[in-house]
Amino acid sequence: MARIGVFDSGVGGLTVLRALHRRLPDASTVYLGDTARVPYGTKSPEVVIRYTRNNARFLLGHDPHLVVVACNTASAHALEALRRELAVPVIGVIEPGARAAAARTRSGRIGVIGTAGTIASGAYQRALAAAIPGAEVVARACPLFVPLAEEGWTDGEVARLVVERYLGDLRGAIDTLVLGCTHYPLLQQVIAEVLGPEVALVDSAEATAAAVEDALRAIDAAPAPADHRYFVTDVPARFPEIAARFLGHAPERVEQVDV
Amino acid sequence: MARIGVFDSGVGGLTVLRALHRRLPDASTVYLGDTARVPYGTKSPEVVIRYTRNNARFLLGHDPHLVVVACNTASAHALEALRRELAVPVIGVIEPGARAAAARTRSGRIGVIGTAGTIASGAYQRALAAAIPGAEVVARACPLFVPLAEEGWTDGEVARLVVERYLGDLRGAIDTLVLGCTHYPLLQQVIAEVLGPEVALVDSAEATAAAVEDALRAIDAAPAPADHRYFVTDVPARFPEIAARFLGHAPERVEQVDV
Repeated sequence: MARIGVFDSGVGGLTVLRALHRRLPDASTVYLGDTARVPYGTKSPEVVIRYTRNNARFLLGHDPHLVVVACNTASAHALEALRRELAVPVIGVIEPGARAAAARTRSGRIGVIGTAGTIASGAYQRALAAAIPGAEVVARACPLFVPLAEEGWTDGEVARLVVERYLGDLRGAIDTLVLGCTHYPLLQQVIAEVLGPEVALVDSAEATAAAVEDALRAIDAAPAPADHRYFVTDVPARFPEIAARFLGHAPERVEQVDV
Repeated sequence: MARIGVFDSGVGGLTVLRALHRRLPDASTVYLGDTARVPYGTKSPEVVIRYTRNNARFLLGHDPHLVVVACNTASAHALEALRRELAVPVIGVIEPGARAAAARTRSGRIGVIGTAGTIASGAYQRALAAAIPGAEVVARACPLFVPLAEEGWTDGEVARLVVERYLGDLRGAIDTLVLGCTHYPLLQQVIAEVLGPEVALVDSAEATAAAVEDALRAIDAAPAPADHRYFVTDVPARFPEIAARFLGHAPERVEQVDV
């Protein structure tokens, strides 16, 4: 019965939306993918904050009870700014991801991987340090993971070599790895093969959906049928097809907007 | 003594600028890299045309005698629109690249590689067919080449495997390959290793500079000292360092603008 606004730089945030649909089947959702300006992971904090403001303003037009920043890079750079500026609660993916890692680790030796922007921001490093006293965190940018996932090369020799080159030296050095980018779960299997069964892989989607559920408990929303809308800033052309990989099914209707 | 405006989605167009500086040392240049919205290669024709118009309008404010679209994707989608709309000559990289390929091929069997957008547009296929009667053209998108080049993984096992996977079956099937993206010359060595010495690699930078020289012959510009300016739409932070790989030296001063 609640209305949830969700945005991401493109399609990756649909993994978070999928977790929300599963956990909160009665909630209505509005998803915005900023496909005309994707990716955010290579851009500066200033530009990511500007784009994030544009996206949030668009979603506010749909009168949500809560806004989810379903993009790690946007959460890393812009969550504090949005929380200051928006009148509704704002939930990012980093704090929930860090709490999920805290629940999994035994040794306190944790890896986190993400875009160049996410890792450079230090947001995960701070959130993990806050959630796990005495944590030893190895943070690493893996810029080729997103293009690999988007190309669909999620198994095979190229994927294995790229994962080995970025993460091979973490084998045996950590017991938990946070997948700090919504594309990375698509590479989960090959990452697990390279790191071995003793490393737990944590993605933020489920933990973020749980945080949204908690936040919505305090909200008194009138009963209404659940409705799901999808917006993108570039032409939707291949969006439904690519979205299916992240969401589990192709959205029926996708509308283009200028934010 | 002429003033040349040059734009690209980011840094790749600096290879064209470098060729212009070499060939026309007396010309002044204004370069714009649309780093806040890079890349163009994954975006729709509509969005690329919109961004291209923004970039051209910015350059026109610097009163150029001629505008160079130093981006293959922008040339593929937007060159005709710009030529209709701008009062100065507009030169793209595709026609010069196709003419350079025509001068190299003996068999008429030519490959062209580029971004998803460039290849889907069919612009190279048309330009090659026009330049080489009876040409047989194999066109192929190689979406991982740009991230590989930007990550600096331009040699080694990953680069070799990726090139093999995209292009291995062209060995023996073509005698000329057009590098239809300004990033690809950074992968030139490994592409040459995979395809063998019987395949000539053609990049558009030199041919585009020659086309600019031809077009400027008709222009009567007042003598003035050459001056080179650099603008980007995202924060310049790492731009000078990355630019050095494409330009051959780091630009002294880079200014941020909103287009």
